[in-house]
Amino acid sequence: MTARAFTGENGDEDVTIKILFCGVCHSDLHVAKNEWGFTNYPVVPGHEMVGTVMKVGSDVKKFKVGERVGVGVIVGSCKKCESCQQDLENYCPQTIFTYNSHYTDGTKTYGGYSDMIVVDERYVLRFPDNLPSEGGAPLLCAGITVYSPMKYYGMTEPGKHLGVAGLGGLGHVAVKMGKAFGLKVTVISSSPKKETEAIERLGADSFLVTSDPAKMKAALGTMDYIIDTVSAVHPLLPLLSLLKLNGKLVTVGLPDKPLELPIFPLVLGRKLVGGSDIGGMKETQEMLDFCAKHGITADVEVIRMDYINTAMERLAKSDVRYRFVIDVASSLSQ
Amino acid sequence: MTARAFTGENGDEDVTIKILFCGVCHSDLHVAKNEWGFTNYPVVPGHEMVGTVMKVGSDVKKFKVGERVGVGVIVGSCKKCESCQQDLENYCPQTIFTYNSHYTDGTKTYGGYSDMIVVDERYVLRFPDNLPSEGGAPLLCAGITVYSPMKYYGMTEPGKHLGVAGLGGLGHVAVKMGKAFGLKVTVISSSPKKETEAIERLGADSFLVTSDPAKMKAALGTMDYIIDTVSAVHPLLPLLSLLKLNGKLVTVGLPDKPLELPIFPLVLGRKLVGGSDIGGMKETQEMLDFCAKHGITADVEVIRMDYINTAMERLAKSDVRYRFVIDVASSLSQ
Repeated sequence: MTARAFTGENGDEDVTIKILFCGVCHSDLHVAKNEWGFTNYPVVPGHEMVGTVMKVGSDVKKFKVGERVGVGVIVGSCKKCESCQQDLENYCPQTIFTYNSHYTDGTKTYGGYSDMIVVDERYVLRFPDNLPSEGGAPLLCAGITVYSPMKYYGMTEPGKHLGVAGLGGLGHVAVKMGKAFGLKVTVISSSPKKETEAIERLGADSFLVTSDPAKMKAALGTMDYIIDTVSAVHPLLPLLSLLKLNGKLVTVGLPDKPLELPIFPLVLGRKLVGGSDIGGMKETQEMLDFCAKHGITADVEVIRMDYINTAMERLAKSDVRYRFVIDVASSLSQ
Repeated sequence: MTARAFTGENGDEDVTIKILFCGVCHSDLHVAKNEWGFTNYPVVPGHEMVGTVMKVGSDVKKFKVGERVGVGVIVGSCKKCESCQQDLENYCPQTIFTYNSHYTDGTKTYGGYSDMIVVDERYVLRFPDNLPSEGGAPLLCAGITVYSPMKYYGMTEPGKHLGVAGLGGLGHVAVKMGKAFGLKVTVISSSPKKETEAIERLGADSFLVTSDPAKMKAALGTMDYIIDTVSAVHPLLPLLSLLKLNGKLVTVGLPDKPLELPIFPLVLGRKLVGGSDIGGMKETQEMLDFCAKHGITADVEVIRMDYINTAMERLAKSDVRYRFVIDVASSLSQ
């Protein structure tokens, strides 16, 4: 529960939400273990939550009690800067993250591994009726993280060829979105074991194992775009080599050390490497509506709250297809 | 002279050109000394030449005897591939470079440190009447190398802030083009000595010395675009940090080793690093016309042919403001 919920506050523009489900993002593990070095304990992780509106403030316009809503990675921003005015709250210098952050009054933010949260309505999403809560929850982080760069960098032209590097929480959603945009989608993975599921379960058109030199060579210069979801330090040259002229590689993982960027392929093929970080509220809503329209959800393993420590151990080993989601409500009702 | 000129050939689509001036590009030095490892001696460098049409083939449509023309980095391509069909001959996989390359019949190409060249008219540029030969010659490589990425990556919006990293042959032309596009231009250099010339001679709005931490800090997040002309291996983090949200850094230098690419600033600021390599023939013509319209030329030191060895020694030490240009015709007439 948030500090604001804890003290019972629900401001005029706030929505009090009973949390039903919350996805387990790899960031939760990074922060819980202080792997990025800026954890401020105590921490309540969780920024992929779906819940029910319990209360609305007097100035709340978008939501009513009883509606199903979502909350993602951010719960606040300055609302005044250029980014906020362009619906890019995610790039506001004063972004308030859903957990391990502070409200403007100094109280800490606590995330979705909890029964309840109070959030300014600007940062609350309408959850489309036909989008299931369990599979829909991870879209609030994993989904928007891959959707936003596909739109911003123009990676949605039907018939073009998208490579998805890394098949985890982000990658498997990118595959589904790529297909929904009408792209040819190839999963690029270091793990040959994932071929069957990539193609048969997720609908990818083809599968490329990075450790197979012959197949990598045959795929040189065949892709228009690559979404690189790999968080570990990894070489960019093999990925850049897969791109055609004018190809775009967008990285959404956050390796903690710089990657090696070879300049010749970038220059000689007019290629670019770009970054992107989640998305603004308007675009997150657009993404949820897009997923509802195209029947896109994350593939999830629903767990109870008391399984979270085991889940995090399994997550650290990538032993999940593809996202754990905590069934918060039923965990607490028993 | 080219092998084709040497044997007196002038095909139906060819133009025979008497060379008047030829710029001395840093690539000439790299190739002459085999610094990139693919020099095929003997080599005649030079790919920034301006000359007079002496002869035209029967199918030549664009040029007449007596006209002043230019030849740049490429003299051939397949004419059939997707790149060629999109006026991107520079990205054709079968590009024929002006020197140190081969024609389709296997004969070698020789560049502009010569009295004469025979070139397929597709790769010959009209030289605008009011563009001086000496200062215009370097535009054929240095000019298009910075113009093309500014157009392709959308770095021409009036009022935006362009950083130009490195003030050499490419950088000084980028400053002038940036001003012609209506941008605010800041030169980013490791050499404090260049401040006066950057501002007073080239018209830059401001100057930033990378070795001054206070000024670098004050400039954080202030630039929309950066053109990085630095060929040596250098850190990208300081440059990326100068960019605003959605900022674009385009590298046109060719460091022979990979650069370190920090991912956090790329992701958190939705920034991109892109490459670009010269330009197609249509765009090179457009660039020449743009320069003629805006009075843009390279700042040159005109030399005679017998000074070339000294010039190359000085070029290796960056001891030139900013391009040597060989006065070929008068060197040969005495």
